[in-house]
Amino acid sequence: MRQVAILGIGQIPVREHWHLSLRDLAIHACQAAMLDAGINKVDGIYVGNMTSGRLNQQRHLGALVADFLGQKGVEAVKMEAACGSAGSTMRQGILAVASGEMNAVLVVGVEKMTEAAGSEITAALTGAADADFEVIHGVSFVSLNALVMRRYMHEYGYSQDDFAPFALNAHRNGAKNPNALFRRPISLKEYEAGRAVADPVTLFDASPIGDGAAALLLVPAERAPEAIRVIGSASATDTLGIHDREDPIWLEGATLSAQRAYAQAGMGPEDIDLFELHDAFSIMAALSLEACGFAERGAGVRLAQDGAILPTGKIPIATLGGLKARGHPVGATGLYQLAEATMQLRGEAGEAQIEGARIAMTQNIGGSGATVVTHILQQPKKTGR
Amino acid sequence: MRQVAILGIGQIPVREHWHLSLRDLAIHACQAAMLDAGINKVDGIYVGNMTSGRLNQQRHLGALVADFLGQKGVEAVKMEAACGSAGSTMRQGILAVASGEMNAVLVVGVEKMTEAAGSEITAALTGAADADFEVIHGVSFVSLNALVMRRYMHEYGYSQDDFAPFALNAHRNGAKNPNALFRRPISLKEYEAGRAVADPVTLFDASPIGDGAAALLLVPAERAPEAIRVIGSASATDTLGIHDREDPIWLEGATLSAQRAYAQAGMGPEDIDLFELHDAFSIMAALSLEACGFAERGAGVRLAQDGAILPTGKIPIATLGGLKARGHPVGATGLYQLAEATMQLRGEAGEAQIEGARIAMTQNIGGSGATVVTHILQQPKKTGR
Repeated sequence: MRQVAILGIGQIPVREHWHLSLRDLAIHACQAAMLDAGINKVDGIYVGNMTSGRLNQQRHLGALVADFLGQKGVEAVKMEAACGSAGSTMRQGILAVASGEMNAVLVVGVEKMTEAAGSEITAALTGAADADFEVIHGVSFVSLNALVMRRYMHEYGYSQDDFAPFALNAHRNGAKNPNALFRRPISLKEYEAGRAVADPVTLFDASPIGDGAAALLLVPAERAPEAIRVIGSASATDTLGIHDREDPIWLEGATLSAQRAYAQAGMGPEDIDLFELHDAFSIMAALSLEACGFAERGAGVRLAQDGAILPTGKIPIATLGGLKARGHPVGATGLYQLAEATMQLRGEAGEAQIEGARIAMTQNIGGSGATVVTHILQQPKKTGR
Repeated sequence: MRQVAILGIGQIPVREHWHLSLRDLAIHACQAAMLDAGINKVDGIYVGNMTSGRLNQQRHLGALVADFLGQKGVEAVKMEAACGSAGSTMRQGILAVASGEMNAVLVVGVEKMTEAAGSEITAALTGAADADFEVIHGVSFVSLNALVMRRYMHEYGYSQDDFAPFALNAHRNGAKNPNALFRRPISLKEYEAGRAVADPVTLFDASPIGDGAAALLLVPAERAPEAIRVIGSASATDTLGIHDREDPIWLEGATLSAQRAYAQAGMGPEDIDLFELHDAFSIMAALSLEACGFAERGAGVRLAQDGAILPTGKIPIATLGGLKARGHPVGATGLYQLAEATMQLRGEAGEAQIEGARIAMTQNIGGSGATVVTHILQQPKKTGR
C-alpha cells in the first residue's frame, strides 16, 4: 500500500451559521481544501455526517457534494459512525488512495445542527448509543457520560473540580483559533460556577454542538514530497453499550485503535508531539490519555493537573481549542482534528503553534468509545533545497 | 490490487418482521454469510443502511453489528448513499480487501422500515432527493419517478400498459424465491387494474419497502479459487436533482458506472448472462437497460416487450424477483442483488436458475440515478478435479 499525504486542508469556522446551508458548509470547506492543494479535479469524495437525515431532511450527501462541487460523475458516498464519522471518512479516503485506486480524494465532514429543535438534536445524538438497551432507559448522551465520570471519580477519588484543567486549557487555546466557536479564556472561578448539565458534568465539562465543515485533500505521498504524511491510520470498535464492558472506565477501543496506529508508525506515545483527542466531555479526555498510553490508569486527570496537556507541556492536547472550545459539529469533528494537526505540523497554527511539532496524533470517538479512529501524522523530512 | 471473491452469502427473507429488530436482521444475515463461508473471524465490517437514524432511533450501526456479531474490536462503519447504500458498502469492502489491508470483510445491508408511521417512512425516503430544490416543492420520491416516466412516455410514444412486462417478469420470478416478499405471479389484467400511486406509476410499477438484510463475506480470490469473483466494481454520480440534468430520461451516472465496470472486466453488455438491475420503478428498469447498453435510447421498454428480460431471454433481469417482487428494504437492496447474482453463478437459484449463467451484472441506484454502483461477477473457471 502507498503512503498517503495531506495536500490540502479547508475549514469553516464553527458557528451558528444561519446564512449557510448544509451544502454550503460542505462545499466551502471542500473548495478551501482544493484551493489549498492546488487541485481542481478529484477521483473520489467521502463525506462524514451523523444527523442530516433527521435534522436537515437530507440524506445522500456523497452525490450532493460531488454535484454542487462541480465534480459530478466521481465516486462519492457518505459514512457514519456517530461522532466518529469524520475520522472514519478519513480512514476510507486513505484506503482509497493507499490501494492505488485513486490519486486525489476529498474527505469532508459536515454537520448543520443549530436550525433544529433542541429535542430533535438530543434525539439525533442519542442514536450514537444503544437504542434498545441504553436509550430505552431514558438516558441522553450527556447523562451516559455523567455516569462514567461519576464512576471514575468514585474509583480514583477525584472531585468534580479536578477536571478543570481540561476546560481551562481548551478555552485558552481556542481563543487563539479564528475557527473556534468560543474564543475567550475562562477562569477557574468560571469553571467552578458552571451549572450542572447532568451531574457531575457541568457546562464546562461538555463540548458545544455547532454548524461546521472541515475537509482534507489526500494524495499519494510520492506525488507530494513536502506534504504532511499519514504514518498511522486505524479504527477499532468496542461494545456499543457501556454496561457491556468489563470496565466501564476504560476505553478498550481507544487502546486497540492507538496500538494499531503506533505499530504502523513504528513508534509509541513518547514520540507524539501533540494529541488532538476527543474531548467531547472532560472525562473522555482523561480516558483517552490513559487508553493511549500517556498516563497510567486513573492518572489522566492528574496529567492535566500537572500541566502536561498545556501547549508547553509534555503532551499538548486541544491545541486549537479541541471539541470543548473549537466546538463539536459531530460528524465533522474528526476532520477538524486532522486539519488542526496538519496546521501544527506545517507551522501554520499562528499564536497556537506548538514549537517544534513534528509528529501529531488525532483520535476521533463515536458513541461512548464504541468506534475509535486514530491517525498519526508526520512532517516530512526537509529536503535540502 | 488483488482480485476479490465472494466466499459467503446470507439473506433474510424480505417481510414485515415484527419479531426481528434492526440488529437481529443484520446479525442473522451476517451469521448466515459467515457460516456459508466457513469463517468465524473477520477483519472489517461495512454496514449499508439508509433510514435507521430516523425510523429506528439507532445510528452507529458499524459498532452495533461488530459488537452483537461477537466481532468486537474490528474496524466497522456504516455507509449511506440512499437506496444505493448497500452497493456502496460492497464497493468499500472490495477496496479494503483488494488493497491488501484486510483478508476477510463482511458487507451487510440492513433496513427495518415497517414499524414506523407511513409519513415517517415517506419523509425518510425523500431524503434521497434534493431537500432544498426538489422536496421543497412537495414532491415525494414516487412522484419524482412518475414525472420521469411521464416524460419518457411522451418522448417515445409509450402508453402506461407498455411497462407491464417488467412487473409480470419480476412477479413470475419472485414466486420462485423463498426470500421474496411477494411470491405470486400476476396477470396482465391485474397489472392493468393496479391503482395509481402517482400517475402514471401504478401499484405494479412501484417496488414495495420491507424489512430485510443481506450480507456477503469477501476474501482475496487467491485464497478461494472456487468462489465467485468480482471482476468489475465501479461507482459514479450524477446531479442530485433531476432538473439539473441535460436529459431527464437518461441515466448518465448509470452509463458512467457501467462503462467503468465493463472496462475493468474487459467485456461489454453482450457478455452479461443476467442483470440484477434497480427496478425500484418500471421506468428505472427501462432506463438502466438503456444506460448500460442493452437497448438503444428509448428502446428499454421494447426490449422487455420482446421477451429479452425473461429467464430464457437475451438478458434476464430480476431473476429472483428484483426490487419489485423480492422487495426493496432500501439500504439492503444492493446486497440482495449481489447475493442473488452469486446464487445464479453458483447454480443455487433452484427453480429460478438461469441456465449456463457464468457472468452476472448488478446495478444499485441511489436517488433518481444520482449514485450508481455496478458490479460484474464471474464464475471461476472450473479446475480439473
